[in-house]
Amino acid sequence: MEFTISQEILKNVTASNSSASMSGALFYREEEAFSGVNKIARKVMHDVELVFGYAPQAAADRSQLGKNAILYGTVGHSPMLLELEKKQLIDLSEIRGKREVFLFQVIDRPFEGVEKALVIAGSDKRGTIYGLFHLSERLGVSPLVDWANVKPQRKASFNLAADLKYISKEPSVRFRGFFINDEWPAFGNWTMKNFGGFNGEMYEHVFELLLRLKGNYLWPAMWSARFYNDGPGLANAELADEYGVVMGASHHEPCLRYGEEYKYLRGKDSIYGDAWNFITNREGITKFWEDGLKRSGKYESVITVGMRGEADTAIMGNEATLADNIQLLREVLQTQNRLIQEQVHPNLSEVPRMLALYKEVEPFFYGDQTTPGLINSEELADVILMLCDDNHGNLRTLPTEEMRSHRGGYGMYYHFDYHGGPISYEWINSSYLPKIWEQMTMAYDFGVRDLWIVNVGDISTQEFPLSYFLELAYDFEQWGTQAINKTDLYTKQWIQRQFAGVFHEDEMEKVFELLTGYTRIAHKRRPEHMNSNVYHPVNYKETDHLLNQIDHLLNLANELVGTVDEADLPVYYALVYYPAVGNLNLQKMWLLTGKNHYKAKLGEMEANKLAEQIRECMNRDRELVNQFHTIDHGRWYGMGLSEHIGFTQWNEDEAQNPILMHVLPANKPRLLVTVDGTTQRSEGSSWHINQLVMNDFLQPDVEEASFTISSISDLPAEYKITCNHPWLTCSSMGGSLNGKEKTMEVIHVKMDRSAIKGETEGHIVIEMPIGTCTIMVNVSNHDFSELPNMTFIETNGYISIEAEHYALNKEAVKENGEASRFEVIHGYGKTLSAVKAFPTTEYFTAGEDAPYLEYHFRVQEGGAYEVELYMQPSNPVTNEGTLLCGIQVNEEEINVVNTLPEGYRVDDGNWAAGVLDHIRRHSTGIRCREGLNTLRIFAVSPGFVLEKLVIYPVGKKPADSYLGPAETYYVGREGKL
Amino acid sequence: MEFTISQEILKNVTASNSSASMSGALFYREEEAFSGVNKIARKVMHDVELVFGYAPQAAADRSQLGKNAILYGTVGHSPMLLELEKKQLIDLSEIRGKREVFLFQVIDRPFEGVEKALVIAGSDKRGTIYGLFHLSERLGVSPLVDWANVKPQRKASFNLAADLKYISKEPSVRFRGFFINDEWPAFGNWTMKNFGGFNGEMYEHVFELLLRLKGNYLWPAMWSARFYNDGPGLANAELADEYGVVMGASHHEPCLRYGEEYKYLRGKDSIYGDAWNFITNREGITKFWEDGLKRSGKYESVITVGMRGEADTAIMGNEATLADNIQLLREVLQTQNRLIQEQVHPNLSEVPRMLALYKEVEPFFYGDQTTPGLINSEELADVILMLCDDNHGNLRTLPTEEMRSHRGGYGMYYHFDYHGGPISYEWINSSYLPKIWEQMTMAYDFGVRDLWIVNVGDISTQEFPLSYFLELAYDFEQWGTQAINKTDLYTKQWIQRQFAGVFHEDEMEKVFELLTGYTRIAHKRRPEHMNSNVYHPVNYKETDHLLNQIDHLLNLANELVGTVDEADLPVYYALVYYPAVGNLNLQKMWLLTGKNHYKAKLGEMEANKLAEQIRECMNRDRELVNQFHTIDHGRWYGMGLSEHIGFTQWNEDEAQNPILMHVLPANKPRLLVTVDGTTQRSEGSSWHINQLVMNDFLQPDVEEASFTISSISDLPAEYKITCNHPWLTCSSMGGSLNGKEKTMEVIHVKMDRSAIKGETEGHIVIEMPIGTCTIMVNVSNHDFSELPNMTFIETNGYISIEAEHYALNKEAVKENGEASRFEVIHGYGKTLSAVKAFPTTEYFTAGEDAPYLEYHFRVQEGGAYEVELYMQPSNPVTNEGTLLCGIQVNEEEINVVNTLPEGYRVDDGNWAAGVLDHIRRHSTGIRCREGLNTLRIFAVSPGFVLEKLVIYPVGKKPADSYLGPAETYYVGREGKL
Repeated sequence: MEFTISQEILKNVTASNSSASMSGALFYREEEAFSGVNKIARKVMHDVELVFGYAPQAAADRSQLGKNAILYGTVGHSPMLLELEKKQLIDLSEIRGKREVFLFQVIDRPFEGVEKALVIAGSDKRGTIYGLFHLSERLGVSPLVDWANVKPQRKASFNLAADLKYISKEPSVRFRGFFINDEWPAFGNWTMKNFGGFNGEMYEHVFELLLRLKGNYLWPAMWSARFYNDGPGLANAELADEYGVVMGASHHEPCLRYGEEYKYLRGKDSIYGDAWNFITNREGITKFWEDGLKRSGKYESVITVGMRGEADTAIMGNEATLADNIQLLREVLQTQNRLIQEQVHPNLSEVPRMLALYKEVEPFFYGDQTTPGLINSEELADVILMLCDDNHGNLRTLPTEEMRSHRGGYGMYYHFDYHGGPISYEWINSSYLPKIWEQMTMAYDFGVRDLWIVNVGDISTQEFPLSYFLELAYDFEQWGTQAINKTDLYTKQWIQRQFAGVFHEDEMEKVFELLTGYTRIAHKRRPEHMNSNVYHPVNYKETDHLLNQIDHLLNLANELVGTVDEADLPVYYALVYYPAVGNLNLQKMWLLTGKNHYKAKLGEMEANKLAEQIRECMNRDRELVNQFHTIDHGRWYGMGLSEHIGFTQWNEDEAQNPILMHVLPANKPRLLVTVDGTTQRSEGSSWHINQLVMNDFLQPDVEEASFTISSISDLPAEYKITCNHPWLTCSSMGGSLNGKEKTMEVIHVKMDRSAIKGETEGHIVIEMPIGTCTIMVNVSNHDFSELPNMTFIETNGYISIEAEHYALNKEAVKENGEASRFEVIHGYGKTLSAVKAFPTTEYFTAGEDAPYLEYHFRVQEGGAYEVELYMQPSNPVTNEGTLLCGIQVNEEEINVVNTLPEGYRVDDGNWAAGVLDHIRRHSTGIRCREGLNTLRIFAVSPGFVLEKLVIYPVGKKPADSYLGPAETYYVGREGKL
Repeated sequence: MEFTISQEILKNVTASNSSASMSGALFYREEEAFSGVNKIARKVMHDVELVFGYAPQAAADRSQLGKNAILYGTVGHSPMLLELEKKQLIDLSEIRGKREVFLFQVIDRPFEGVEKALVIAGSDKRGTIYGLFHLSERLGVSPLVDWANVKPQRKASFNLAADLKYISKEPSVRFRGFFINDEWPAFGNWTMKNFGGFNGEMYEHVFELLLRLKGNYLWPAMWSARFYNDGPGLANAELADEYGVVMGASHHEPCLRYGEEYKYLRGKDSIYGDAWNFITNREGITKFWEDGLKRSGKYESVITVGMRGEADTAIMGNEATLADNIQLLREVLQTQNRLIQEQVHPNLSEVPRMLALYKEVEPFFYGDQTTPGLINSEELADVILMLCDDNHGNLRTLPTEEMRSHRGGYGMYYHFDYHGGPISYEWINSSYLPKIWEQMTMAYDFGVRDLWIVNVGDISTQEFPLSYFLELAYDFEQWGTQAINKTDLYTKQWIQRQFAGVFHEDEMEKVFELLTGYTRIAHKRRPEHMNSNVYHPVNYKETDHLLNQIDHLLNLANELVGTVDEADLPVYYALVYYPAVGNLNLQKMWLLTGKNHYKAKLGEMEANKLAEQIRECMNRDRELVNQFHTIDHGRWYGMGLSEHIGFTQWNEDEAQNPILMHVLPANKPRLLVTVDGTTQRSEGSSWHINQLVMNDFLQPDVEEASFTISSISDLPAEYKITCNHPWLTCSSMGGSLNGKEKTMEVIHVKMDRSAIKGETEGHIVIEMPIGTCTIMVNVSNHDFSELPNMTFIETNGYISIEAEHYALNKEAVKENGEASRFEVIHGYGKTLSAVKAFPTTEYFTAGEDAPYLEYHFRVQEGGAYEVELYMQPSNPVTNEGTLLCGIQVNEEEINVVNTLPEGYRVDDGNWAAGVLDHIRRHSTGIRCREGLNTLRIFAVSPGFVLEKLVIYPVGKKPADSYLGPAETYYVGREGKL
């Protein structure tokens, strides 16, 4: 017989419950249990009610339990568990002493009258809590049930096998959590309206969200809020402690004191003095820290140690020596350690502490050749050393091999949201799972396993990547380095979790396309970082292609609105529609603006239509935020308030909306021919350019291209197209535009490859009011079938290669049998994918132990070429300041190049361009011979992630674009139209 | 008793004329007179009718003459004149043998029954014609009476003193005329509609215009037209010859053949061959020339000699040596001279001939050190050597002193209209009389006195500068070099001539302001050369100042429309309103566009209002052209058709109308403070710029400045201004904008200088929705009365000096007593005037025989400075390629600098910038000492015309602008508000 919960059972209990003496309760509540655990059990009971439609009951009296009962408890805090162990119904030794582990087992007849019981036994408080929420998960309840009002699918009954026994794993990362940051205007307005402050009523929901997502660690809002005062009083801290939520604070908030507190407490007559200065006000600062620990040391926390100056500066002035600074910081640490021993625990190794290795502290940690730093010092023994990304999702320094033995371990502070330079991004989610996977697995592999914290800004719309981040931290075995290319799988599971019963399978497929689609577009460029000059308005048609993708996704999003039930709309809106459509609409607006400006400068009447479309996007943006603020009875009010359009500074000050350009019609009929995908244009005037070139058909598999005729005036203007080649057809041979409702016509040109051998040239003649323009159509139709597959063919001056289209992926095997090789990370590129060498921690020697990729290509002329690599904007993983790879052409020597600009450092201009563009480009000179060539790319430094390679003769760089030239032909490519 | 014409007399004649036997005729018509002279007399009779309202009569029978008669004739073609001479009533020896001279004398009783006669006796045909038109002029008839339908003021009677005797001068320049060029679309459409072709019916009016303006020489339309075929047949040539109009042709049309003719006649079977090549088709070309001379040699012409390749190329290819080319050109000239002797006149010195020294021919003319050129060769004896300007009104090479002895003399081809690079200007007049005066007097002084021809494009709207040009050529004594600063006087006379009786004196003053005003603005920048990036939209408020000037002039123009009679409106419209308003409206449109773009980029809601104003200007432009095409029954139809907006190429192809930029309002109340005249701005954000500077009051005579508050959103937004200085007041202390009807507010700041001594600083604090902005108001109020007058005081980092504000103008006197000195040419500057050394032909040695100007200025710190000279974009007058002046600071050595860029040549980029900008700037390093300094500018090369000097510390160039920084304070300057 299985363990069963069903509507039937619950209904009867509820019915009988109207009588005074209860019977048939589902949950057994022990007095000895942690109060927080009992509170969580009540949340799970509510989940059960949501699933079955009937509320279960809890009883402390075993006689009131039903035939199926749920027995939960924590090792060391549960006589009941000991009793079951004694009866040999369970074996607690499997979890005892473990960290955050639970046993989840079905047993028979634990007590009189109970036939089947589900035992949820935690190794510790959080173990039990995770075990309880594990039941909710099995019931199909989303971790977002409370936070986002995600309703589970209704069930009639639910069974667990009679022999079910499941023991959870210890979480992969010790402290796992998120940071509510820069809470105004969004989170602040939201909590003021819904809860009246940054208080326990609000944190109740945040803690629940954290715990359901299997996190255990939180940095609370601290921009304006004071966690230890806003509860009101200590209510926030007490609640956290009750739930087992470990509180932390960012890098400049030592000894359980948040940044804002000193501002409130300092003053001329303050016992804490009036200077954040450990030299001039050592006594006051020490007292400030001491009182912080006295007040909050009793709660479970990771205590920040160290110190830095106000407003992100170093502690001492510029004139201080390195040794002075190190000595001062050592004294700070000694003081803090002493205070912690006095106020929290005499054994420091029992107290989780954290020092942030931010740039102000880094030099004092490492020291230099003559001055030893604090690295390996006894003051830092057992202290978690927290590293960080560059605020834009790219890790900075990681522990070197020798550093990894540090007993306190390492932490990582990561960002999904950021208020700072070069440009903030705080509106809606723009993080992309493959990026999180690539970066955070590298962190883990480098030994960063004690603390993962992610800045989620206002939380809202970050639920999707946040779920993933915490899942990865909890279960690295399942989702980590070995789980390459499983972010899609995760996404599908996540969608299932939120929308089972809401959408059909095919609709969930659309949700999947939408979530991956919008985040992938945001991964090309975050919405806050968009402007009209990012994508090229015409080259390679990159703007039009992206607009098409966006329109496709917007259509999907809207289709789903049409199918979803009204009751489910708010959840769909909040978790999918709003972040996706908000993002896409904004991207679209800027793309249209780029086109509008480009066309306006050419005088095209079409520009005026585009201007109206931009205006619609702007209205849509405001409408979306307003909708978000009103759905579900204003549940999300405030969460859309972050500025997100047209940053001209690092923050939203002086943000500029798109400028709409309108053209005034020319005073006589004028038309313009443009060759699509290029900047070529002509009005046909014999004095100026009246001969254009169409090179699309130089690519052996291209059979369709286009040009456009546009109105320059609002007067009727005729055009006539002549094309006398049997192998070349135009979709129109003439017509008329009027610059009003009819402002442009795209003429599709098709060629019949079967009619051509080798190279030829066709002519398309377009007669227009001002004159006649001729498009020379160049065609190449050689037979490359003799060449090996994956050979790229230069037909039009350059070759563009997606990194995954190598001809050979050469593994390297060490003497100890360890293999290393490049792997393709699907979807992790601006135009296709990326390749990265694994293990990620290795430094290789090109030509010796390095894996490599080999590319084959053919050029028409030998000589000096450039190869331009398109890479993720990774930072070097240590302080060496280089990010190397090896490049070898044919039999020539391997050239080990630093793909970073000379003197590169995080925060400089090159870095800023990289994090905004989400790409780094690096060019190297190579020599090619006429005909076939081989190019090898060797792994050297960790962090090298390659997306694309572009090869062109020196001085003949392909036309500008944001995404780089579209991939060119290779043997074996499927023909495309 | 005076000679009298009166309505009374004419009325009676007319009345009696109804009877068969006429009596009382006013004009005596001799059979022996030139037919053309008699035709001109009929035109003058028509003038008389216009003046008195009654038509006079002409009689060949002396008995039919009235008591007052007009007797006209040409020496050698008038028995009547001989008869009068015999009677000793006139003395023909005073005019006999002279060129184009007439005697205009009142005599008594020449014949029986005639009591008083006006004798008009010409030394030759044109002398008589000018004499006849002289009567019209005396009657108050405008030379434009026929061309532009300018009606004379009605008179009751007209008297000439009984003893009147006037002998005209020989015209200063031998051949004086204009060139109808690039006749499509304007002139072409006009003549097709009005006359059906480029025929005699049309040329009748052109010849009359030329002769009334005292010209004698014409280059006919030849872009598409063929003068010798279109008459129809030779009618055009015959009519010209009859009227004494000397026909000419441009530089590449030798032997009375126009450029289009060869195109029509060439061909495989043509007797002229099929190649414009004197090497491969010598026979055909020679025959072509011979037949041209045979056909047209009988008419009075200046025959073009020489040859160049087709489409403005050299005759021979690049591989030919200089000697080859010279030899070929010599053979061309020998052939042409021989043909002219055979077909026109055996004595070549009797045949006016012209060779254009255009750039293709120049090297062959001058030769080099080893190869003598054609200069001084016998083939060119008596040939007029025609020089030219740079197509934009700046002379190129002029005859050196030794060249001036060339017997054939020199000609000048000048432009009021041009179809070519860098940008064409063909729409409406944009020439400025002081420029014409400065350049053409220099030409005359350099010996260019035999031929002046000006390209007037379509003629229409060029009547004003054309009148001046021909007047200057006719009477250099009155209007030439000695008549400095008399262009205003000329303008007033010209207005009087067209509008006596139409406007009152004060209205004519407005017309004067309008004509000088619009041409002066066009002299800053021609309308076709305007775009939105010319003037700086805010710096020094140059855009706003110019907009104010334009609006003032537009108001004047429109006021006058209100006062003029309907009958007189067409003439006012055609001669004044249309060119003035067309020009001004266009300039305004571009200035508004510059502001629109600037403000749109700052997000100012005001931008949207500006966009509407631009649209109005565009509509106005089209409306103006349409009105011009319909007034006076379509008299000017076609003349407005030239493209004139937004050239992006040298010609009108791909011209772009202004782009209107619209802003979308910000989503929260935002205001922007800008300090007027600067690019400083702030929204008050504490993260970004929130402190601005107002430096206007650093100039000791400035007592008012301003800043502007602008809406960035369309939401109500309040501002509050605090200013707690008794000496500083703001025109408003607060208010609200809403971004709709109220988009901006200019706050005027006044200071009370009497309350301040020395230097101080005030603060104006502006509270706005985003934050608070502080304007630091810097004040300097030192007493400079101890310093000498005309001392410029540096108070704000630079000094800007109008060239005429020198402290000393130092004349130089040669041993022979000849004085040279700088003269101020009023109005001949972008911001005030210009200075130029006279005599213009002199080269001076600075420090020896050179006149100089001395400027005094005071700087706050000694050190390295730059002095930037603003000059007319003159070309060097000879081939030396330099344009020198001397610069001396204090006691240091004189630095003779070349104000031209290294390697400067006409047609290069620097030249192009100069002719578009109408300015050339040149900077020189100087050393200044703290306190008072003296700067001397010495004349060196001819053509140096200085407008402005700007002095600033090295590396601290004042803010960008088109006109340069506004003049800064000097001791003695009148206070300005």
